[in-house]
Amino acid sequence: MPRIWHKTLFKLLKKGHFALLGHFPMAHMYVKIGQNCHFYAIPADGFRFEMKPGTTSAFATHACTHQWHNLGEANSMRILITNDDGIYSPGLAALAHIAKQFGDVVVVAPDAEQSSMGHAVTHSRPLSLRTSPVPFEGIEAFRVNGTPADCTALGTHLYSQIDVVLSGINMGLNVGNSMWHSGTLAAAKQAVLLGKKGIALSTPVKNGYPKFDLLQPYINQALEILFQSPGVGLWNVNFPFEPKDIIWTRQSVRQYDGTIVPGLDPNGAKHYWFTVTPLAPAEEGTDRWAIEHDLVSITPLRLDLTDEKELERRQVHQPI
Amino acid sequence: MPRIWHKTLFKLLKKGHFALLGHFPMAHMYVKIGQNCHFYAIPADGFRFEMKPGTTSAFATHACTHQWHNLGEANSMRILITNDDGIYSPGLAALAHIAKQFGDVVVVAPDAEQSSMGHAVTHSRPLSLRTSPVPFEGIEAFRVNGTPADCTALGTHLYSQIDVVLSGINMGLNVGNSMWHSGTLAAAKQAVLLGKKGIALSTPVKNGYPKFDLLQPYINQALEILFQSPGVGLWNVNFPFEPKDIIWTRQSVRQYDGTIVPGLDPNGAKHYWFTVTPLAPAEEGTDRWAIEHDLVSITPLRLDLTDEKELERRQVHQPI
Amino acid sequence: MPRIWHKTLFKLLKKGHFALLGHFPMAHMYVKIGQNCHFYAIPADGFRFEMKPGTTSAFATHACTHQWHNLGEANSMRILITNDDGIYSPGLAALAHIAKQFGDVVVVAPDAEQSSMGHAVTHSRPLSLRTSPVPFEGIEAFRVNGTPADCTALGTHLYSQIDVVLSGINMGLNVGNSMWHSGTLAAAKQAVLLGKKGIALSTPVKNGYPKFDLLQPYINQALEILFQSPGVGLWNVNFPFEPKDIIWTRQSVRQYDGTIVPGLDPNGAKHYWFTVTPLAPAEEGTDRWAIEHDLVSITPLRLDLTDEKELERRQVHQPI
Amino acid sequence: MPRIWHKTLFKLLKKGHFALLGHFPMAHMYVKIGQNCHFYAIPADGFRFEMKPGTTSAFATHACTHQWHNLGEANSMRILITNDDGIYSPGLAALAHIAKQFGDVVVVAPDAEQSSMGHAVTHSRPLSLRTSPVPFEGIEAFRVNGTPADCTALGTHLYSQIDVVLSGINMGLNVGNSMWHSGTLAAAKQAVLLGKKGIALSTPVKNGYPKFDLLQPYINQALEILFQSPGVGLWNVNFPFEPKDIIWTRQSVRQYDGTIVPGLDPNGAKHYWFTVTPLAPAEEGTDRWAIEHDLVSITPLRLDLTDEKELERRQVHQPI
Repeated sequence: MPRIWHKTLFKLLKKGHFALLGHFPMAHMYVKIGQNCHFYAIPADGFRFEMKPGTTSAFATHACTHQWHNLGEANSMRILITNDDGIYSPGLAALAHIAKQFGDVVVVAPDAEQSSMGHAVTHSRPLSLRTSPVPFEGIEAFRVNGTPADCTALGTHLYSQIDVVLSGINMGLNVGNSMWHSGTLAAAKQAVLLGKKGIALSTPVKNGYPKFDLLQPYINQALEILFQSPGVGLWNVNFPFEPKDIIWTRQSVRQYDGTIVPGLDPNGAKHYWFTVTPLAPAEEGTDRWAIEHDLVSITPLRLDLTDEKELERRQVHQPI
Repeated sequence: MPRIWHKTLFKLLKKGHFALLGHFPMAHMYVKIGQNCHFYAIPADGFRFEMKPGTTSAFATHACTHQWHNLGEANSMRILITNDDGIYSPGLAALAHIAKQFGDVVVVAPDAEQSSMGHAVTHSRPLSLRTSPVPFEGIEAFRVNGTPADCTALGTHLYSQIDVVLSGINMGLNVGNSMWHSGTLAAAKQAVLLGKKGIALSTPVKNGYPKFDLLQPYINQALEILFQSPGVGLWNVNFPFEPKDIIWTRQSVRQYDGTIVPGLDPNGAKHYWFTVTPLAPAEEGTDRWAIEHDLVSITPLRLDLTDEKELERRQVHQPI
Repeated sequence: MPRIWHKTLFKLLKKGHFALLGHFPMAHMYVKIGQNCHFYAIPADGFRFEMKPGTTSAFATHACTHQWHNLGEANSMRILITNDDGIYSPGLAALAHIAKQFGDVVVVAPDAEQSSMGHAVTHSRPLSLRTSPVPFEGIEAFRVNGTPADCTALGTHLYSQIDVVLSGINMGLNVGNSMWHSGTLAAAKQAVLLGKKGIALSTPVKNGYPKFDLLQPYINQALEILFQSPGVGLWNVNFPFEPKDIIWTRQSVRQYDGTIVPGLDPNGAKHYWFTVTPLAPAEEGTDRWAIEHDLVSITPLRLDLTDEKELERRQVHQPI
Repeated sequence: MPRIWHKTLFKLLKKGHFALLGHFPMAHMYVKIGQNCHFYAIPADGFRFEMKPGTTSAFATHACTHQWHNLGEANSMRILITNDDGIYSPGLAALAHIAKQFGDVVVVAPDAEQSSMGHAVTHSRPLSLRTSPVPFEGIEAFRVNGTPADCTALGTHLYSQIDVVLSGINMGLNVGNSMWHSGTLAAAKQAVLLGKKGIALSTPVKNGYPKFDLLQPYINQALEILFQSPGVGLWNVNFPFEPKDIIWTRQSVRQYDGTIVPGLDPNGAKHYWFTVTPLAPAEEGTDRWAIEHDLVSITPLRLDLTDEKELERRQVHQPI
């Protein structure tokens, strides 16, 4: 089975007992489920597939490189899409387009750019929801005068059956310590706070837009894995400009790139920019390291900030 | 009294029945507990002290007239004070006043309320620093047109020798999952990102202002403990309205109080408020539980969001 | 010749092949309609027109009610389009589409809604210009993180040859005293401050979008008149939902519809909405009166706020 | 002497040519009121006044051309104070302090700086009113999360008996065309829209704060004159750094100082500052000219933007 095959199959045949077959132009679409392998087969439009155990795989390279859609279990997913770049971001459109393959989709995104808004929410004024001025290929889409986390809260309030919130595709990475400022990740964290699965997706911008076509198979694969993951779950996924593979990573926490740079306004008054500096190479196995090596990074995150080790040490003397 | 003594005292002799002694270079460490006095002794690292009732000391009399100042090493601490309620908050003034006992203090706080701003930072425009229009008892104080995290970044840029950032005293608790939205905590997290110790302090508001006088001994005690703590460290401290004691806690993560409530504007247009709902009682040992029991809560936090257990489980199959 | 003809003719035919007719209204005003050609005639404040012999006259009444385009002198106009509803407003797109007939067009509009921003400008931070995420039929278009007046200032800075700034088409009227709050009008005022002609265009919204097709001939006519007007000039043009005719008006200043209405937030805290109340019918001859009678209103405005009469009375005793 | 008289006396005679009257109330305090004159005397909390013999009418004539103002009933005035520099501005405090002499005062000001906000109002969210964190010498004072015009609207809603709105003292001039951007003036304009008298007061800032003590007699005099003025009235008052006299002026409209200056952010991205350029000397008799000559400038303004002359010319052809 060629490597490309592994990469482009994007629906997990899970539980390994059977597989899908069907009305497919090819008779021999068999996939063997190996121990450490995750195989995906994509149904053709409206077809049903089955696959017997032990069957093997001339499964069309042609088909799987293009248009494999998930009509399987994940198809019943109810997906809320949001972001922090705002309703007009091409990253949002790309993500909505991809998500449609996995279930019912609704878009609720900020009406203006909300980058670096962190996990801000809007308590001091009411939020308004308006129909998106840009169409999303038949997907219901709304803009909100709020933050990414507001959008998750409002979207899941209005569409209470939502299973998962996808946030992105952010035009810019969200790895390492910079994820603290990320509105993209905050929308996914907000999902988890509200009992939904949350997945943040980000990619760097180099001289123009990301090549979403290039990313699509990796996005598909990542979503399939994470949609299948039991429980709620919070996941931070970053895609390099041209991905080669996908790995599980941890957050890179040793370095931080935020810095203050002074400047002058036209009247000569001093001011200060919060900007970023280049970092030294990251530690192996971290999200930033993965990107540095053209690997898609999936980091499982948690929402409990407690420092367990420190707490354990301290609680020896309790009360203080 | 030798300098070493000053350095090592840090533990509150509470309830007046006994005090701590121990492994201490001096034999005569006695502290008399006066009626309205709060006495603190600072243990050496990991030592236990005891003090017999009725012991006296010129040291004690003198010291307790000023409510216990840190006369030791911590006195040379360089402290940045910020908050998310803005430069005019009485909580900020109260904290600056208390912090002065511990070292050199500078105030750099937002010029407007920044509640629920989470860990937002300002990349899209420069920040301006202006002298505070309200005085801080001889403390240098500035207002910034930015977020709490901006203030930490700018303050530590301008005063690079800062050892610790205190954020608060927030007019409102920051416990459990709501800490994700907290600008107060974000300022402390930003400190840690920048290599400084970060401590967030919050207290509830009931029918007016908190009674800072009532809180002061507990604030002193908490700061003394945390200033002594080795390493950088991130701490989230919450004070109940009328504290009885201090305990180490973990973050309460089982419940979340953020919710959306619909409403109508005067033109009959629908809108939505991001508000909070009452929660069921918290799990014992958590920050929220502590407050429910009139206990000051100190929660050690970490900035690594990685879900270690999930990662370990996943990395069995690496690359994906 | 139908009345509508008299109204809509007003532009000189250019390219010298033939020209227009005599003193208006004249008997000899015939224009030959070539294939795919749009012909205009310009009304005349006492001008004389000529037309070469031989031209004939199937000059469609039909045509002139719809699609009179400026192919003449005005074609050399350099037009900046902005608004206060933001770059995504259908009113902006409609105006840019119409303006293309009159010359070279560039769009520089706010990236977010800026309604009721009045004549605010942004001094405290720099403005950024980005390519519009929505296309404008081959027109260069940019979004700015600023107010309508900022957009005029930045647009005319970048395109210094601009002759006229069109602001709108605002989704909502700007008549009477409410024009003080109008960002739409402010963009036009800013144009005049900078030595350019400024024209604000507004129309009411009823159950959805305005019918721009219905408005187009009146917009064309208004622009043709105002583009021809000598000098700089500031004009406030309001279109009723279904216009019947165009008149010159004055600002209605006797009534004001801004009012404060109290309300409660979900926590029971009192707050206040700045909203509007219905007004009694307006005085005849005013902008609001025109709209009430389905008439397009064009109000010439001035930027000198001096109350001349009061000043004259006062200056009898000078110095005070 | 009627009680009202006692109340209204409050202005010191300056320049020492003569002084006031006796211990208050005194029998000799006679002031002849000339036809166009406004006479003032200064109340006396047990002060001694002197007036040279025989000065009754001669004194009056001379004095009234300068600094004698008749406050009369004005002492019963109900005054709303606001500004655009925000609740903490020393200019606001100075104005409130002075206004107290003239009647009942309430302060309702923005909670954050609102410079260059023009006549913006807040429709999209509710306004909140909170007690001012800074005291105003026994004056009720509130901060509002809105614009200067919002503050006028909310203040006059809550205190419907308000007679006059004073806006300022702005830390920066508001003369000539720059008054279009002025939030200070907008608050006064909003007063007039709502049927109250509106007065804007501004002064330049040079190396620190204005010398309000130096300005105070001129502020008193200006207010006395304008409070006496019949009708509603809109007035724009500008004080030079060190005033010599007061004159009536017109708005300077020939020049405009707003300009765009490009710059670079720390990442090298281009941005643009809306800033101001120095102007050539102003035309005599204008507000800016007055300031250039150390004269307080009072400009009567109107809220009718109609260009009467242009309208008259156009209406010859009506309908168009």
